[in-house]
Amino acid sequence: MLNETYRRMLANKSVIRETAAYGHKRAAEIGYENVFDYSLGNPSVPCPPAFTAAMQDLLAHEDPVALHGYCPNQGDPGFRTAAAAHLRARFGLPYEQRHIFPATGAAGAIAHALRAVTAPGDEVLTFAPYFPEYGPYVAGTGAQLKVVPAQAPAFQPNLDAFEAMLTPAVAAVLINTPNNPTGVVYSAATLERMAAILAEKSAAYGRTIFLVSDEPYRDIVFDGGTVPYPAAFYPHTLTCFSFSKSLSLPGERLGYVAVAPGCEGEEILVDMMAQISRFTGHNCPPSIIQKAAARCLEVTSDLTVYETNMNILYDALKALGFEVERPGGTFYIFPKALEPDANAFCRKAREFDLLLVPSDTFGVEGYVRLAYCIETEKVRRSLPALERLAAAYK
Amino acid sequence: MLNETYRRMLANKSVIRETAAYGHKRAAEIGYENVFDYSLGNPSVPCPPAFTAAMQDLLAHEDPVALHGYCPNQGDPGFRTAAAAHLRARFGLPYEQRHIFPATGAAGAIAHALRAVTAPGDEVLTFAPYFPEYGPYVAGTGAQLKVVPAQAPAFQPNLDAFEAMLTPAVAAVLINTPNNPTGVVYSAATLERMAAILAEKSAAYGRTIFLVSDEPYRDIVFDGGTVPYPAAFYPHTLTCFSFSKSLSLPGERLGYVAVAPGCEGEEILVDMMAQISRFTGHNCPPSIIQKAAARCLEVTSDLTVYETNMNILYDALKALGFEVERPGGTFYIFPKALEPDANAFCRKAREFDLLLVPSDTFGVEGYVRLAYCIETEKVRRSLPALERLAAAYK
Repeated sequence: MLNETYRRMLANKSVIRETAAYGHKRAAEIGYENVFDYSLGNPSVPCPPAFTAAMQDLLAHEDPVALHGYCPNQGDPGFRTAAAAHLRARFGLPYEQRHIFPATGAAGAIAHALRAVTAPGDEVLTFAPYFPEYGPYVAGTGAQLKVVPAQAPAFQPNLDAFEAMLTPAVAAVLINTPNNPTGVVYSAATLERMAAILAEKSAAYGRTIFLVSDEPYRDIVFDGGTVPYPAAFYPHTLTCFSFSKSLSLPGERLGYVAVAPGCEGEEILVDMMAQISRFTGHNCPPSIIQKAAARCLEVTSDLTVYETNMNILYDALKALGFEVERPGGTFYIFPKALEPDANAFCRKAREFDLLLVPSDTFGVEGYVRLAYCIETEKVRRSLPALERLAAAYK
Repeated sequence: MLNETYRRMLANKSVIRETAAYGHKRAAEIGYENVFDYSLGNPSVPCPPAFTAAMQDLLAHEDPVALHGYCPNQGDPGFRTAAAAHLRARFGLPYEQRHIFPATGAAGAIAHALRAVTAPGDEVLTFAPYFPEYGPYVAGTGAQLKVVPAQAPAFQPNLDAFEAMLTPAVAAVLINTPNNPTGVVYSAATLERMAAILAEKSAAYGRTIFLVSDEPYRDIVFDGGTVPYPAAFYPHTLTCFSFSKSLSLPGERLGYVAVAPGCEGEEILVDMMAQISRFTGHNCPPSIIQKAAARCLEVTSDLTVYETNMNILYDALKALGFEVERPGGTFYIFPKALEPDANAFCRKAREFDLLLVPSDTFGVEGYVRLAYCIETEKVRRSLPALERLAAAYK
């Protein structure tokens, strides 16, 4: 018999995927250039030339048996050393090779980190709005995801509600800064208070509550700002990074878990995650990608296009009267819909060939997400459609 | 708190890994050339030049955004189409793109296939001796692994015992041909009778029992023989393949599940496996590796060295009086130890700097595995050590 849990999931199509599929269909009808598809968070800029050069150099000069051979269970040692040095220099925490566990993107990183610090029956807290894949990541561990309500309009985490929900059942807290879908960067003040609450409750309950910090957008930050680094505020942090956005390599599946120096279990967590891989059939991200990325830790793709696009969209949305928080990073913006039902609003937007994602999929009602990882020229051309959409609600 | 299940696993070191680690340590003492390390199944021949050329061509000529972008959840369409065409031509079954699910090596393939066709509490049967990672793969699904006893000396599956153990609790049967650790190829007669038993029991119990066939050694076959293809005998088969051995790419993590045409659920199994990925954080094998391998389906590494090594070792073992079955493929051979305790025999072998793996780790007692994916010259130089080991038991 087929597994009923997974079979049933086929009926629940992802709204994001469904919207993107509609976009493809519509593009076939009226031309790709006429569909303003803000549905998918897929990087639109190429990887840096340094990555391609690193790949070519490895293929030309490395012994293929070593280049393509099995990694140790804990990942490529050179990559781990390079990632630790990068984090040390950038965030001032004393990371070493032993703190780094390479994983298949942030997805693999989160799946491993959560399994390491939860047991079936535990609770994992996250903050709305949140990336919908957190649902299956947590379900896969046997723990239960509980969602702290959103705090509009600024969308900093709701720490009063958080404190009330932080019961002894909570093993870990899963955060995401800069945030998908809001684009908001968690402030230092937010992280400071969050850390204080975590430390106080851990002491009160006699067990360390872990922080799992999902940071794939760390390098996409606007207005010359910086992103406060959660692990610098709370030591029991497993930082999950992905190169999908920073190096525009989402298909190559490379990221890592960085166990913060001073984290409970720091001496065994990476070895535990290597054991966890055996249950999921994961067994390390690809060898050549680890080796090439190890040479590219101090570069990124040209990410400036996302800030250009953000500014155009933010100014247009404000001018049209939308309630919207200015993103501090990512390639998302999260305005309030012009009617209470975000799904109805997205259907209305489709009449103007504007493809938006309703916020229900992120655990809040009444907002929409625009993923502006598309050509700037197209963002500009979408403004009249946005204007017509707003006019429909006057 | 750290997860106790995974923490406890750190105490149970893999005997194979421990033996390989000893080999490294010993090599540092007496020189690499003097340690006859038969412990690890790591390919010793380079990938075919066609693979390197395909990678270089993709890097030189493809748009990086498309090359390194997200795959559809079901994998790269070009790779899937190519793999289906390859299987169609080679085995005469009408595979199409929709039957192919790319996965991170055979490990990922087996983990996905088992989750798709079992539910927690089900039983999965396998045949001793078996690859020890089957334990965690099955445990990860929540099902229970049951082991059909071995049948020495030929090590074809014990089908009488199989029939008796095939109760209504069994959801799937996991086989491996050519076999690790024995090197034995399951005969057509074996597969025919196994299929008949599966069909009969499925009918009797009113539920389809699935066959999950692990075939990473399919292309390493000796004496001009062929490997009977299990899916050709039983339609409800999920074939798990890896390019780790055929293309010598174990670190690049590419394999696939091929759902046999006519398999129960063939129209939804690949979509279900794409859903399963969301729980494990797997999300497709690397994009560029899929695209390069799609161009290399009709080539392999030069695998002849394994047959050369097998012949040298088999002849030497026979001449020294070992009881040993002649392997039909793989790069393993599985002689009977010269004392009942295989662990003691392996310790004795270490005195001659011969590193063997005791059969206990594969679920049978009294045998040892030699992985002869090493230089032929070294196999030759190991023979006097083998001779001295045998002499110690005269």
